[in-house]
Amino acid sequence: MRSLKLTLAYDGTNFVGWQRQANGVSIQQVMEEAFAPMLSAPTTVVGAGRTDAGVHAIGQVASVVIDSDLDVQTIQRALNARLPPEVRVTAVSEAPFGFHARFNAAGKHYRYRLATGPWVSPFDRWFTWHAPARRDVEAMRRAASDAVGRHDFASFQATGAFVSDTTRTLHRFDIIEDQAELRFEVEGDGLLRHMVRSLVGTVAEIGAGSRPADSMPAILAARDRGAAGRTAPALGLTLVADRY
Amino acid sequence: MRSLKLTLAYDGTNFVGWQRQANGVSIQQVMEEAFAPMLSAPTTVVGAGRTDAGVHAIGQVASVVIDSDLDVQTIQRALNARLPPEVRVTAVSEAPFGFHARFNAAGKHYRYRLATGPWVSPFDRWFTWHAPARRDVEAMRRAASDAVGRHDFASFQATGAFVSDTTRTLHRFDIIEDQAELRFEVEGDGLLRHMVRSLVGTVAEIGAGSRPADSMPAILAARDRGAAGRTAPALGLTLVADRY
Repeated sequence: MRSLKLTLAYDGTNFVGWQRQANGVSIQQVMEEAFAPMLSAPTTVVGAGRTDAGVHAIGQVASVVIDSDLDVQTIQRALNARLPPEVRVTAVSEAPFGFHARFNAAGKHYRYRLATGPWVSPFDRWFTWHAPARRDVEAMRRAASDAVGRHDFASFQATGAFVSDTTRTLHRFDIIEDQAELRFEVEGDGLLRHMVRSLVGTVAEIGAGSRPADSMPAILAARDRGAAGRTAPALGLTLVADRY
Repeated sequence: MRSLKLTLAYDGTNFVGWQRQANGVSIQQVMEEAFAPMLSAPTTVVGAGRTDAGVHAIGQVASVVIDSDLDVQTIQRALNARLPPEVRVTAVSEAPFGFHARFNAAGKHYRYRLATGPWVSPFDRWFTWHAPARRDVEAMRRAASDAVGRHDFASFQATGAFVSDTTRTLHRFDIIEDQAELRFEVEGDGLLRHMVRSLVGTVAEIGAGSRPADSMPAILAARDRGAAGRTAPALGLTLVADRY
């Protein structure tokens, strides 16, 4: 038995998300099915980030314990031969035995793309949130920088989530303007469910003028999902990298 | 009545190509349907390049004669509201009456993307030809430069095409290496049907060593489709711009 570290890229458009679910195909399911022929018993593939339906990844890390002696190059080739083209294994390496992609992760880097112009490129249509509006980017940057640091992010946790300690450290929340697109680069230690999307949705409302630029501290202090803005749609979100 | 010049971007994956056909949905059809509500009679939308099924565009120029008085901004907005998200009108401008996107075009710029590594990014899977092989890029550049200039390109015309004069001028056939991708930038005056794809297919065979680096002059001289290599698949091709 040995542990492997896998790095994955996927177009999440047609998946129910990372985790196995009854109502559709998950990334976890296709990964476990791709491993099956090389193992004597089924295995569980653990993803560092449990991305939601429609969320993409370019650097998702996953871990697996297997009883195969195949070398890592052969494993990568065999997985990619069996996986649908929406999911690619971009790297496979040996990991210390017991390596766990989620529990061992030190942080995550997400990117969110918001298209602000009148139309979205056909090539970006599954990868950007189209919300055309003139936005005050400086106001958005003020709010984003107020969210950076160690805070209780209860106001930015999905309704119905069961995490009791909602304190997290946000290391980075940058906003990059690129023509008719705003790109949010968000890095933090373990992030709460929907945290990036509700931060982006809230900051987008601030940019459109429906909330003041200095409203972030009060939203955080409220510790109430209702105090923050709407959750930005899944399709604009990409998991860029998991940090160890 | 007035003439308009339109610039279009489209993801050609799910279309039968530019031209109307009985067996599926064409770009021309969705464009003409998008115009219908603003006109008193149906119109024909003429594309500069009649792209094949699966071929993409980022700067396809089209022309149309309409009897509407709407301003160009309103027309652009109305078209994009009615078009499927795979097709976007990126610009609309007034043109001299009688402007014809195809007959008036002076040249075209196509890009072809070839993925040479063991796997293709999920995000590029509809936009690159995956043909993993070690390739001699210098040999490919030699052959590409031998094709630049004014030649009879009969060896690079689709079988069954009915163009009698197959002499064309290729202004540019550059090969750019970008990690595990080769990008072909091809510019010429009116190009023959499948010309870019058969040039790329032939040069790819030269790169893989199955034809010598100096074989291009003889292939051109043969004036025979059978003398050249295979036609590269449609999905790797994008019409970048039409020149006037």
